Amino acid sequence: MDLYSGYINRLIAELSVLPGIGNKTAQRLAFHIINMKKESVEKLAGAMVEARNNVKYCNECFTLTDSDLCPVCANPARNHKQIMVVENTRDMTAYEKTCKYEGVYHVLHGAINPSLGIGPNDIRLAELLKRLQHDAEEVIIATNSSIEGETTAMYISKLIKPSGIRVTRIASGVPVGGELEYIDEVTLTRALDARVEL
Amino acid sequence: MDLYSGYINRLIAELSVLPGIGNKTAQRLAFHIINMKKESVEKLAGAMVEARNNVKYCNECFTLTDSDLCPVCANPARNHKQIMVVENTRDMTAYEKTCKYEGVYHVLHGAINPSLGIGPNDIRLAELLKRLQHDAEEVIIATNSSIEGETTAMYISKLIKPSGIRVTRIASGVPVGGELEYIDEVTLTRALDARVEL
Repeated sequence: MDLYSGYINRLIAELSVLPGIGNKTAQRLAFHIINMKKESVEKLAGAMVEARNNVKYCNECFTLTDSDLCPVCANPARNHKQIMVVENTRDMTAYEKTCKYEGVYHVLHGAINPSLGIGPNDIRLAELLKRLQHDAEEVIIATNSSIEGETTAMYISKLIKPSGIRVTRIASGVPVGGELEYIDEVTLTRALDARVEL
Repeated sequence: MDLYSGYINRLIAELSVLPGIGNKTAQRLAFHIINMKKESVEKLAGAMVEARNNVKYCNECFTLTDSDLCPVCANPARNHKQIMVVENTRDMTAYEKTCKYEGVYHVLHGAINPSLGIGPNDIRLAELLKRLQHDAEEVIIATNSSIEGETTAMYISKLIKPSGIRVTRIASGVPVGGELEYIDEVTLTRALDARVEL
């Protein structure tokens, strides 16, 4: 139905391709954009095009960045022998926010998911193995605690262990502040299995 | 914190100005945009700028449209003596989707809201009164069923009634398919007061 003008319909259609933006949200955003200042809309549109055209993969860890090396890989104060493997740049950022991790990262850009046809060759795994040929001491696998993340963790672990490099996995358990009654059985079981002496 | 590259940070900041888009959603959208095809990003950005620059208000009903007159106002088959007053273009579209209304509209672009300092002069009310000087027969007030919408409805009704033009309000009651147990008391009371003979 052509309920709005051509320009509004086109904008709604374009916004609807974004993840999590359904038709109703796209309408709301479209009307907000139409009422924004001309310069603000141009800034928003420009930021999209520029980010798309200028962002590239770090030559070392494959995170998304503007330069050949990301700020973490370019920092000599970081421990370049400790590599944390994550599924995407957002997960890397989540760990950077803790300010507690001093090693570097490797961003896979995905996880093994046979049901979607995503195999080991579809993620940046070959690049990880290549990096490990230089002097790596530990690979910390921090893929998600989902079926795909666990599958990927197991796969990587089996692949690397024969080389003698230490392979670890971030702990799973009850989140800090989590109330037991709302936590699923698998997490509770893991938390029990991984219990520590006090 | 400058966790991402400059371009990504700038895009996240720009996306966060949109309504209902918090920092987490902005991050998710930004990474989606960076991974989109170059041409798709340019189409999305172009649609924003073009819609902002080309959409104008209908000379007659003040809805957002591309031309001097919106398709409804330009249609001689519509009843131009019956004017439905709505708060915004989306509400007008909602009624157009019913395919049951044959009159025209008047879009206020807001509702009277004293707590936000929005008075009768801040919405397109003077323009409505001007339209009514020509031969209008009925004004159907279809502002929202919120405090602001009701206030606006009362205000318009008092303003127009002395002129002798018929002023009506869309009915409020239990929505079709609504289960009584989940409906608030005010709506239930209104539905009872407005009961009809079977």
